[in-house]
Amino acid sequence: MNNDGNATGNPFEIAFELPPKGSRRSSESVHAQLRAAILDGRLVPGSRLPAERQSAAFFGVSRNTIARVYARLAVEGLVLPRHGSGTYVAAKQQRPRRDSASTRLTTDPRLNPLWLQPELVLGLSFWHDNPHATSSRTAPSLDFRPALVDPRLFPFDIFRRVSVGQLRRMELKPPVFKSPQGNPGHFPLRAAVATHIGVSRAVVCEPDDVLVTAGAQQAFDLLARTLVKPGITTVAIEDPGYPPMRAAFLAAGAKVVPVPVDAEGLVVDALPASAHIVCVCPSHQFPFGVSMSAQRRAALLAFARKHGAVIVEDDYDGEFRYDGTPLQALRSTAAADDVFYVGTFSKCMLPALRLGFVVAPRWAMPTLVAAKNCLDWHCPTLTQMTVARFIADGHLARHVRKLRKIYKTRRDLVRDMLQSLFPGELSPMPSHYGMHVAAFSSAGKHLARVTARLAETNVQLHSFDRYFLDTPTSQGLVFGYGAVDLDEIEMGLKALRRAL
Amino acid sequence: MNNDGNATGNPFEIAFELPPKGSRRSSESVHAQLRAAILDGRLVPGSRLPAERQSAAFFGVSRNTIARVYARLAVEGLVLPRHGSGTYVAAKQQRPRRDSASTRLTTDPRLNPLWLQPELVLGLSFWHDNPHATSSRTAPSLDFRPALVDPRLFPFDIFRRVSVGQLRRMELKPPVFKSPQGNPGHFPLRAAVATHIGVSRAVVCEPDDVLVTAGAQQAFDLLARTLVKPGITTVAIEDPGYPPMRAAFLAAGAKVVPVPVDAEGLVVDALPASAHIVCVCPSHQFPFGVSMSAQRRAALLAFARKHGAVIVEDDYDGEFRYDGTPLQALRSTAAADDVFYVGTFSKCMLPALRLGFVVAPRWAMPTLVAAKNCLDWHCPTLTQMTVARFIADGHLARHVRKLRKIYKTRRDLVRDMLQSLFPGELSPMPSHYGMHVAAFSSAGKHLARVTARLAETNVQLHSFDRYFLDTPTSQGLVFGYGAVDLDEIEMGLKALRRAL
Repeated sequence: MNNDGNATGNPFEIAFELPPKGSRRSSESVHAQLRAAILDGRLVPGSRLPAERQSAAFFGVSRNTIARVYARLAVEGLVLPRHGSGTYVAAKQQRPRRDSASTRLTTDPRLNPLWLQPELVLGLSFWHDNPHATSSRTAPSLDFRPALVDPRLFPFDIFRRVSVGQLRRMELKPPVFKSPQGNPGHFPLRAAVATHIGVSRAVVCEPDDVLVTAGAQQAFDLLARTLVKPGITTVAIEDPGYPPMRAAFLAAGAKVVPVPVDAEGLVVDALPASAHIVCVCPSHQFPFGVSMSAQRRAALLAFARKHGAVIVEDDYDGEFRYDGTPLQALRSTAAADDVFYVGTFSKCMLPALRLGFVVAPRWAMPTLVAAKNCLDWHCPTLTQMTVARFIADGHLARHVRKLRKIYKTRRDLVRDMLQSLFPGELSPMPSHYGMHVAAFSSAGKHLARVTARLAETNVQLHSFDRYFLDTPTSQGLVFGYGAVDLDEIEMGLKALRRAL
Repeated sequence: MNNDGNATGNPFEIAFELPPKGSRRSSESVHAQLRAAILDGRLVPGSRLPAERQSAAFFGVSRNTIARVYARLAVEGLVLPRHGSGTYVAAKQQRPRRDSASTRLTTDPRLNPLWLQPELVLGLSFWHDNPHATSSRTAPSLDFRPALVDPRLFPFDIFRRVSVGQLRRMELKPPVFKSPQGNPGHFPLRAAVATHIGVSRAVVCEPDDVLVTAGAQQAFDLLARTLVKPGITTVAIEDPGYPPMRAAFLAAGAKVVPVPVDAEGLVVDALPASAHIVCVCPSHQFPFGVSMSAQRRAALLAFARKHGAVIVEDDYDGEFRYDGTPLQALRSTAAADDVFYVGTFSKCMLPALRLGFVVAPRWAMPTLVAAKNCLDWHCPTLTQMTVARFIADGHLARHVRKLRKIYKTRRDLVRDMLQSLFPGELSPMPSHYGMHVAAFSSAGKHLARVTARLAETNVQLHSFDRYFLDTPTSQGLVFGYGAVDLDEIEMGLKALRRAL
C-alpha cells in the first residue's frame, strides 16, 4: 500500500508506505521510514512532527506504537520531544555524530517497556549534545552548557600524591570489611562527608546518616527504587528541572508530576496533595538558578509534614555561594526525618570520579543500605579512601575556596555582559550560587534555532525548552561558566550577539 | 495482655506479651520481643522458630506481619531463614558484631515493600558473616568462604605504577566524552575486555558488545531491571546458587523459581516452560563447583530457543581452569543473541575495584546502555583507564597465570586432604575451575552446627544450606581457597577434623 503525499489525511505532507494492517513489524516500518525522511532532509530540521494521534491514524497503528517510534527517534537524537508542545525534527548539529549502540534503541518484546516511556527517553537524551554522551574531541569549543567543570583547575598533582599514598596503605593493610554504606576504618568517606557538609552547608549529621553513592545519579536511582511503589507513588518535580533526575523516578515506575518554578523557586501552592515525594534544588534551581525563598522553604516543609510526603533535596553546587542571604539547606536537624539530602563530588572535584552521597532519615537508611548492597555492593574502595583523605587533609576546602573566587568572577562577567550586550533582549536572573546563570528572553524568540546556529560555530549553549517536561512557559538561555574562562566567556557572548 | 509460656497454643515455650489487637505497632512489638529473647538467650541458638502461621496465630497478627518480622530479624543477623525448612536462631558467632545501620531494617510504609521480601532479605544477608558485611579485623582467621581473593598475591606495585601513569594522562588530556557503556578513547576497557575474554575464555565479541559495570552485581541488577517486567517475568535460578544474584531479580519484581543442580550442572529438564530468563554458572557452579556437561549446555540453548528465553551466564572465575575437558562458554558466536555473559574483575584482580562487565546481545545493548546511564552515568573513568592499561600491558594475563598455578596447588591439597582425613564422611566433587571445592557429607550431619563451632576458633566455613532457596536437598561444605595458603589449608582442615 502506498500513500501519496497529497492524499487527504496525510499530516506529513510527504509520501510514506503504510505498513500492512496488524503486522507485528509495523513499528519497525514506521520507524525506518521516518528515520530515513529525517536523515535525507525530507522532514525539515526544526519542523514539528504530527501529533501522535494524527500519525497513528495515518499509519493505521496504535497511538502506543507511534509513541514508541517517536521515543526511539528521540533516543537516536533525530527528534527533540517537548512534552506538551510536540516533537520536533532535530537540527543536524544536535544529532549525535556516530551511530553508536546507544542510538539504536530497539523495542524487543523481551525488554521491560518502562525504558521506552517517552518522558524517560527525553530525560536521558538530555545530554545528547553533552560530553556525557557525545564527543567534542574535534575543534575546541566554547562550552556554556551547565553542570560542566573545568578540569584545568583541578589539582591533579595533589590528587595523585594522595592516591598513591592510599594505594600503599591498601597494600600494607588490605581492607577486609567493605560496607555498602561506604568505607569504614580510619579515614571513612562518610565521616569526611559529614564534616565537609557541616562546614560548607551547615548540614549537621552523623557519619551513620551518610550513604556513599556512585554520583548524585545513583542517589536518585536508589531513592527511586526504595521509595517508589510502581504505579502508585506520585513524584512532584520542578518544571523546568534536571531531566536525568526525573528519568530515574520514571524508570522506577513513578507517576511524575511537573510543578512550576518562579523567581522564589518551586511554587509550593501548585503541589498536588497526592505527592508522596517532592524533588527540589533549593539553593540553586536547575536551570533557572534562583534560590528558594525562606517562605517557600517553610511552606514546603509544612506541606511534607501535612501530607506525609518526603523531600529529595539536590544540592549539587551549594558549596559555591557568592552573595545573597545565606539560606540553610532544607535538611536541617528539625527536618532530618523528612528530607533526603543529595550531594556530589562531580562539581567540587571531578564528575569522572563518580562519587556522591545521600544523607538519609534513619527510618530509611537500612533499606537504602540493603538496596545499595543489591545494586553494586559498594563504591570502589580506593576512590573512597582517596577522596576521604583529600578532604581530611584540607585539599577539598582549599580547592573549593579557589574555585569559588574564580567562578564568582566568571558569574559577574556573564551577568555584566548580558546586561550591556543584550539590554531589553535577555534578562539575567539573580543567581547567588553555583556555576550557571539563566536569562529570560523578553522577546520570546525561538531560541532553539539560535543555539543550533551557534553550535555550528562551536559555541555550545542550552535554551530553556529542553529542561521542561510540560509545555515551556518561558523562553531563555542557560549560561554555564564551569568550563569557560573569562576570555572564552567574552568570545562566546560576542558570538551570541552576532547570532541573535 | 500477657501470655504464659505454658499456656496452650504458645509455640515458643517462653512467655511473650501479646500486642493489642489491630495496633499498628504490633509488628514493632513482636519484633522487639523476639529480638530481646534471642539476644538474652531465651531463644536458644540453633533452635527453630515456630512456622509463620503458628506465630501469627499466637501473636494475633497477620502472617504477612510475621514474615516481615522474621525477615527483619534475618537482616539483623539474628536468625537464619532457610526457605522451605524454616527459620533458625543464629549462633552468636554468626551474628554481626556491631549494631550498624544495616542491621536495623524498618518497615516504614513510605518504603517500597519489595525490599522486605523474605527471599530477597535472605539473599542479601548471605554475606552476613562475610567480609562484605562484617569485620574480621580482630583475630587472624582461616577463611574458607568462597569468592574471596588473597590480596597478598596482588601486584600492588605494578597497579600503582599504571594508576599514576593514567592519572598523568588524565591530567594532560582530560577525558571529555564519557560513554555509559564504558570509556572510549585509546585504551578503552571494552576493547581490553573483548581481548581478555577472547584469549582466556574463547568468547568472541566486539568492544561494542561489552558494557562495563560496577562488578558482576551491577550487571545482574542491570539485567534484572531491563529484562524483568514486574509480576510477569519468571526467572529460573540454580538451587543451590549465588544468593545475591537472585536478590537482584527479586528486587526487580521477578518470580524466581529454583531449579535443581546435579553433577552435570543445572537440571535442564526441570526448567519450567514459563521461564523467560535462566541464570547459570556453567563453568563452575556456585557452590557445587561442577562444570555443566556438554549435553546439558546443548539442551539449555535448545530450551532458550524453543521458549524464547534468554540465558544469563555468570562466568565469575572461568579464567582459572586446571584440568578436565575445556568447555566453551555458553556465549558462543552462535548463541550471541540468546546469552548475556557476565564477567568480573573481582576474582582475577580485586573485588574492591568494583569492576565487571556484561557481553550483551545487540537487540538489548541500547536499552542496557540507557539503563546504565540512568543508574549512575558510567563507571569511574580512572579505574577503567587503569584496568584497561593493566590488561593491555599484559599484567592481567601474567597475574592470572601466577594465580592459576597457586590456586591449582591449593585445590589439589584441599581435595587430597579431604580424601585422606574424611574418608566416608566428605566426598569432594570434581572441580576443574575457580577457587572453591564442594564436598558432600555422606553422613548427612547437620553441618551448620559444626561450622558455627568452627567459627568460634576463627575458622570460617560455609555449609551448603545457606545457598539453597528451596529446602536443601543435600548436606555438605564449601571450601574456598582464594584467601588461604597451603599452611592455612592444612591447619583449617585439621581443625575441621577435630570438630566433626
